[in-house]
Amino acid sequence: MNSIKAEIITIGNEILSGWTLNTNAHWIAQKCNDIGLPIQWMTTIADAEEEIKTALLNASARAEVILCTGGLGPTPDDITKKTIASFFNTELVLDEKTLTHVLKLFESRDVIMPEINRNQALVPETAKIIPNSLGTAPGLVFEKTNQLFFFMPGVPKEMKQMIELNILTMIKSFFNLAGFKTYLLRTTGIAESRLFEKLETALEVYEDIPVSFLPKIIGVDIKLKINEKSDDHRKRAEQFFSEIKKIIKKYIYTEEEKELEEIIGEILRSRKLSLAIAESFTGGLISDWITNIPGSSDYFLGSLTSYSNESKVRELGVSENTLKNLGAVSEQTALEMAIGVQKLFGADCTIASTGIAGPGGATETKSVGLCFLSAVYKNKTSVKKFNFGANRRINKERGSMAALESLRRLLLDIES
Amino acid sequence: MNSIKAEIITIGNEILSGWTLNTNAHWIAQKCNDIGLPIQWMTTIADAEEEIKTALLNASARAEVILCTGGLGPTPDDITKKTIASFFNTELVLDEKTLTHVLKLFESRDVIMPEINRNQALVPETAKIIPNSLGTAPGLVFEKTNQLFFFMPGVPKEMKQMIELNILTMIKSFFNLAGFKTYLLRTTGIAESRLFEKLETALEVYEDIPVSFLPKIIGVDIKLKINEKSDDHRKRAEQFFSEIKKIIKKYIYTEEEKELEEIIGEILRSRKLSLAIAESFTGGLISDWITNIPGSSDYFLGSLTSYSNESKVRELGVSENTLKNLGAVSEQTALEMAIGVQKLFGADCTIASTGIAGPGGATETKSVGLCFLSAVYKNKTSVKKFNFGANRRINKERGSMAALESLRRLLLDIES
Repeated sequence: MNSIKAEIITIGNEILSGWTLNTNAHWIAQKCNDIGLPIQWMTTIADAEEEIKTALLNASARAEVILCTGGLGPTPDDITKKTIASFFNTELVLDEKTLTHVLKLFESRDVIMPEINRNQALVPETAKIIPNSLGTAPGLVFEKTNQLFFFMPGVPKEMKQMIELNILTMIKSFFNLAGFKTYLLRTTGIAESRLFEKLETALEVYEDIPVSFLPKIIGVDIKLKINEKSDDHRKRAEQFFSEIKKIIKKYIYTEEEKELEEIIGEILRSRKLSLAIAESFTGGLISDWITNIPGSSDYFLGSLTSYSNESKVRELGVSENTLKNLGAVSEQTALEMAIGVQKLFGADCTIASTGIAGPGGATETKSVGLCFLSAVYKNKTSVKKFNFGANRRINKERGSMAALESLRRLLLDIES
Repeated sequence: MNSIKAEIITIGNEILSGWTLNTNAHWIAQKCNDIGLPIQWMTTIADAEEEIKTALLNASARAEVILCTGGLGPTPDDITKKTIASFFNTELVLDEKTLTHVLKLFESRDVIMPEINRNQALVPETAKIIPNSLGTAPGLVFEKTNQLFFFMPGVPKEMKQMIELNILTMIKSFFNLAGFKTYLLRTTGIAESRLFEKLETALEVYEDIPVSFLPKIIGVDIKLKINEKSDDHRKRAEQFFSEIKKIIKKYIYTEEEKELEEIIGEILRSRKLSLAIAESFTGGLISDWITNIPGSSDYFLGSLTSYSNESKVRELGVSENTLKNLGAVSEQTALEMAIGVQKLFGADCTIASTGIAGPGGATETKSVGLCFLSAVYKNKTSVKKFNFGANRRINKERGSMAALESLRRLLLDIES
């Protein structure tokens, strides 16, 4: 690792007042860490002169890269630009190129530019400009002997574009940063502690390679950050990576920053298969996830959320005997739901969920969190039993994830 | 407003590495602002001695209330407790009461306590203890002449319980804070700018009463913070509040921190009505929202997500002529879907959505974001047309919200 460190300063009263969640700092931290630039400090302050100056002073005494977002709007209460000009002992001057861009932006929206937006073209004389094709506020960068200060608008899509198109490259070249490549493995269906157990020997052998585990509700992400400057290190890391993959292969659903529903969608699309869903335990969440993916209408036929025995019998053809003898929360009901929804929609693949999402609804023999998930692919079927916890929303998320994973394994012929 | 100010310090490597979104600071900021205690600075730092001391020193020079979360785990890398003992010139001593609590907690889980958890009972000698019934790490508070320092675990539910049961009360009484009462109005179906227009006169008349507007994807929240110490102010604020309510009555779905799906659930439950849903544009999201509410199985019968014309005809009984002549994205289709799902489930009320969620799927006459939402209550019906934007997820959320709001107005006989 190199010793260059970064800090993030968020300027915004809306964060301090608890109105807006600071997702910008979170996103920037991910991007910086991915190129091997650790964040050592995050600060959120009001759009006020004294605060901004103090935060900049503190950060500049500690870090080489300072990344600021927010406070670049055209209204008078956005005093950031004036303050940073004064902090860096310079003046605001009109930048013709920015003015032309801002004028064009309003023209393209068929709106006459309010005079106040002329302010957006005022920039500190010693700053370099980072273009903002998506908005009116340009980004700014100040280069010092061994420091870079970036100022970006708080609008997420504008900030993100600047980071991805310009800022990461500028940082890497200015500090001659080692190239870092991040390898990602997304797993599901296995707890973090079990992953550790399985990987224990490999982790010991390759203890010089930094690997991190990120447990989430729906699975565990594994990240390896590989320094590309050292050939030996890179080769060893790649060896390690492929060994990990071998050991936990069946739990890995992607090596990209994708969700499981995207992966399922890709499999279905490439194999020209269609999907239908029957939900009880998960209450519509699987359907919601599937339809979040653009173009999902190419393979998704539809779903039925069935919250009553009557509808399980009527729409899905679950047998009344099954419900009477085994109950709605049973392996057999899950399977009959999956088969029933396959017939209903004429789908190639289906998934079905039934269970007790909680917090109420437990019986003497069936506790909150109990659920049965079934997957069907043509005439192959699988049913699995799970015992999740007491939290209704978390149960729905875990159940949806496990159901999708069941289908992935069925489609790819991976033993469950 | 009083002049007491607070700062939030989050101790956590997982935040700096971009793995975890800092929702704790966001939540604490809301709670503090609600009692009239503004947050002036938020800091996130690593679990490292120097960082913690610097952050505490900086904050203590600026603020009267310092709220810290994180770093209180029992493992050796959680060095927060040692560091704060040293910062406050005191020693860690064993607290018997905490030890008993920790032992009992493990006992109740039928787990033998790992020896390392004995550390949780070590507390700085001069600190007062805030009990933590939900976990092993006690909260700590240091009282100085005119300052309060709080240390809480980073586990959200433990931290939240401490804030709500103990900390807010301690802050209010220590600083003899004016009682603040927050009045909330949650609106939907009207843009922030239109709300301003409607309220312009009232806002001018009562310009001494601070009111804030929080626009979200699914609606605008309006908040009034009322100082309860001044009787005149309180009376005027209440007058203002009731005037606002009169002007924008039909857009207000609740005065509590509740979601619209909860409100709908309460109406259905109290009137013993049942609900079914037919979704195309919203892809299962309405069903997901409805089933997030505990006990929703009392009134929710089920839903059908229909992503094909065939299923709209087959399950919902939408007429083939309607689809051929007007298309799946039409007022008539939305209405027939709502009526069809009413028959299918035998429900008292239904909602239905159809549209182009995007980013693809636009036609020459129908653009991305176009949707039709229908609500049915017994034999009363409503259909509305909306033009949302290009973002698929935002379209789904706006559509779900507008559909639920249509049903609320139909049920409560509010004109749409």
